[in-house]
Amino acid sequence: MISKSPYGDTFKYEIDDTFEREKIDAFLKKRKTVVVQGLGFVGSAMVAALALSRAQDGSLRYNVIGVDLPDEKNFWKIARINNGVPPVRSFDKKMDEAYAQASQNKNVLATYSPYAYSKADVVVIDIHLDIKKKELGAPYEYEFSYDGFKTAIETVAQHIVEDTLVIIETTVPPGTTEQVVYPLCKEVFSRRGLDINKLYLAHSGERVMPGTNYLDSIVNFYRVYSGINSESKIRAREFFESFVNTRDFPITEMHSPTASEMVKVLENSYRAVNIAFIQEWTEFAEEADVNLFEVVKTIRKRPTHQNIMWPGFGVGGYCLTKDALLADWAYRNLFNKEENLGMSLAAIGINDLMPEFTFELLQRELLDDLNGKYITILGVSYLNDVADTRSSPTQVFYEMCENRGGRLTVHDPLVSFWPEKQLEIDTDIKNLADKKHDIAVFAVRHHEYVTLSAKEIREILPGVRIIIDANNVLTDETARELAQAEIIVTGVGKGHWNL
Amino acid sequence: MISKSPYGDTFKYEIDDTFEREKIDAFLKKRKTVVVQGLGFVGSAMVAALALSRAQDGSLRYNVIGVDLPDEKNFWKIARINNGVPPVRSFDKKMDEAYAQASQNKNVLATYSPYAYSKADVVVIDIHLDIKKKELGAPYEYEFSYDGFKTAIETVAQHIVEDTLVIIETTVPPGTTEQVVYPLCKEVFSRRGLDINKLYLAHSGERVMPGTNYLDSIVNFYRVYSGINSESKIRAREFFESFVNTRDFPITEMHSPTASEMVKVLENSYRAVNIAFIQEWTEFAEEADVNLFEVVKTIRKRPTHQNIMWPGFGVGGYCLTKDALLADWAYRNLFNKEENLGMSLAAIGINDLMPEFTFELLQRELLDDLNGKYITILGVSYLNDVADTRSSPTQVFYEMCENRGGRLTVHDPLVSFWPEKQLEIDTDIKNLADKKHDIAVFAVRHHEYVTLSAKEIREILPGVRIIIDANNVLTDETARELAQAEIIVTGVGKGHWNL
Repeated sequence: MISKSPYGDTFKYEIDDTFEREKIDAFLKKRKTVVVQGLGFVGSAMVAALALSRAQDGSLRYNVIGVDLPDEKNFWKIARINNGVPPVRSFDKKMDEAYAQASQNKNVLATYSPYAYSKADVVVIDIHLDIKKKELGAPYEYEFSYDGFKTAIETVAQHIVEDTLVIIETTVPPGTTEQVVYPLCKEVFSRRGLDINKLYLAHSGERVMPGTNYLDSIVNFYRVYSGINSESKIRAREFFESFVNTRDFPITEMHSPTASEMVKVLENSYRAVNIAFIQEWTEFAEEADVNLFEVVKTIRKRPTHQNIMWPGFGVGGYCLTKDALLADWAYRNLFNKEENLGMSLAAIGINDLMPEFTFELLQRELLDDLNGKYITILGVSYLNDVADTRSSPTQVFYEMCENRGGRLTVHDPLVSFWPEKQLEIDTDIKNLADKKHDIAVFAVRHHEYVTLSAKEIREILPGVRIIIDANNVLTDETARELAQAEIIVTGVGKGHWNL
Repeated sequence: MISKSPYGDTFKYEIDDTFEREKIDAFLKKRKTVVVQGLGFVGSAMVAALALSRAQDGSLRYNVIGVDLPDEKNFWKIARINNGVPPVRSFDKKMDEAYAQASQNKNVLATYSPYAYSKADVVVIDIHLDIKKKELGAPYEYEFSYDGFKTAIETVAQHIVEDTLVIIETTVPPGTTEQVVYPLCKEVFSRRGLDINKLYLAHSGERVMPGTNYLDSIVNFYRVYSGINSESKIRAREFFESFVNTRDFPITEMHSPTASEMVKVLENSYRAVNIAFIQEWTEFAEEADVNLFEVVKTIRKRPTHQNIMWPGFGVGGYCLTKDALLADWAYRNLFNKEENLGMSLAAIGINDLMPEFTFELLQRELLDDLNGKYITILGVSYLNDVADTRSSPTQVFYEMCENRGGRLTVHDPLVSFWPEKQLEIDTDIKNLADKKHDIAVFAVRHHEYVTLSAKEIREILPGVRIIIDANNVLTDETARELAQAEIIVTGVGKGHWNL
């Protein structure tokens, strides 16, 4: 069988559990063993952080085993780790170094064998728990199931021994650890004749961010946790203190796992609501010919208003686009409320459709005549200076333009392959000069775009008639120079943009 | 005729414009003259700030004339000022001192005569512009009219001379200065044969806060302004630099008056939305038995999340309860959008009904049997440590309890008379001991309440069986001690409150 990574490398594999078991047995040294279940964006960073942890005498603290499924979609992660390479590509050199070092130190192994769990002192659950919107902009309509998540937890419960600490790091509906994970483990333990009081179960949400501080977002950031009982809390705290810099970023113990779970979905809903709020006012400001950046800048001087968001192109990534839905699901299903988390859900809907606003500006400038026009989109990732394209607003915008007959060119300095659209992308911005451009949209605030001069923009985009700055990429000065060259320049939140 | 202040002092008056004109003429010294129209909460603070302003040589900079209407509702303000007392009572000693000083210096006069405007170099508009909700919790239904506002502006335009600077400080729907005030002034000037190009017109929102920093919220705070043309901007800036500490709190010029108007309603909508957001999660946390204060506290450690609000009892005052409606009105009527500012409006509705949540807790604890129960509410003002009761959430709560047959006692250390309910209040908390108490609700986070020990609370509220902390007044320690004395203790956002 063959598994292909989003980066194009392919790996052959066959399933042979006996062989994997032998590998695991041979791998284990006389240290504590941590098994990370799920080798995606979060799990692979956890593996790196744990592999780097050293005891006071300088010796490596953990055997780290990463586990994922032996299927086409996932096996490549196992293979990459065993080659000494992080499964998820990033611009964080520390991450590459951590994997290279672990490879040398031989304290990281990746496998698909659940046998690994039986060797664990600690199991960290980093698998996905998805919630699916039926369509963008309709956040009340979502589909949620614990099925895959429960299967994964059950596998762990079937293999771990007594005294193992299990930590849920997955973002889950608040209440999951106590109402779903614990009863499931109890059932399996009872079946296996194990003492459920010797299961230590905790929750601690991750706050992992893509980009150059990818590893640091685990090691050097505030951590929140709780456990189902005091011994679970004590063990979880000890565990995190062994690889998180809790001196500079003090760790917080919450009363219950439900409280710990709530931290994550609440803080992401806070951001989502504040983005949706400013989107509402971006549309108002456009009507009123007001440059909203000017307004927000002066409001942000007030310490009580510093978190007010800037206008922008859209919201992407794996968290802000869905965490409020997980909370809403819990509210209605684990806590049996009839109401929705209305404001938090509404925000998700508004944010999903944010790229529509840029599309409206584009329609306005093209007099609604997109058919056959050459539209160039600069920026594909969901965040500036990262390569992560998950739920990128560019996709929504791209498809809108495509449906209306636009001829699209996309560029991103960091994304050479766009998995969601299965598109190869030329990352060299200079090569755009060989293409045709009627209208160009700056969608992402990548450093490479922000530093472009008006002259460079004109060289890169020969013949361009209209430029839409959807994400505050151009300085007023650059915009003015472009306007002086008879290019129509407009932007999200720029209102009059008194050029 | 008689005008009675909310503080109980009464003033006789007769209307005699000739006499007032003579008074004004006699009052004016060889300085610039500023006339403040509207002597309410904002206008009376402006009068004080302007009266204190001195030129570099130490001489008083301005003749300050305050103007309000000679009717029962307003004349008392004029009378109090002319007695050397601020019209609005506050706990800011600087305000009392400013008026006493002005009285000595004889550089403040209050009058109802529009003749004052003819003497002005600068007129500051500080009258109310109300928007009325048809009912609480239904923010889409509101009534708005410029009528009174336009009459006031017209009066100014009819009396001022050319070269006067008029500054709108009233919170208005964005677009008002350009689309309403300017055309009206133009019409009046044309009728009077004056040159409209010699009208200088600006907008600058106030950010006045009640409490001990009442005067400082004008003098020592960030100021934002704009004008209808560059000369208006220059003159407005000079004016504010003459009495605002712009060295420590740099002043910001906006591109247009509409942008300046938007700052105020946007920043207040931001607060309102964030309060509504946390109210939604307060209800969730209650169901999930989570202490939301614990959750918010840990989230606030993140600099990007420091503005996240705490759970609370409700929202009152004159701004947060209505400014989003002014914005929505402008969006739909001055800029002709069909959509509403949905999120900002929804927040107003949620916040209006916040006290219902405390009422639900109360019903739960009283097993829905309020009839004849002695309910004591601690706190009447809309904000801690101020005496301001405008749109206080306590009123909503009070009326809910009253409608269900509760026997109510209210206390507030700072409010001796509650104008909205026409109630005298005994401000001495010790006298509560003479009353009956089944249930007590801490509604406002007044300093006097926060510093109460459990022992003191039991002495003040003899026989009380249930205490609801609706505004994070009690420490965990105090709550625990009360619970140990077999008082049922619960609170907004406290969830389990693991006592």
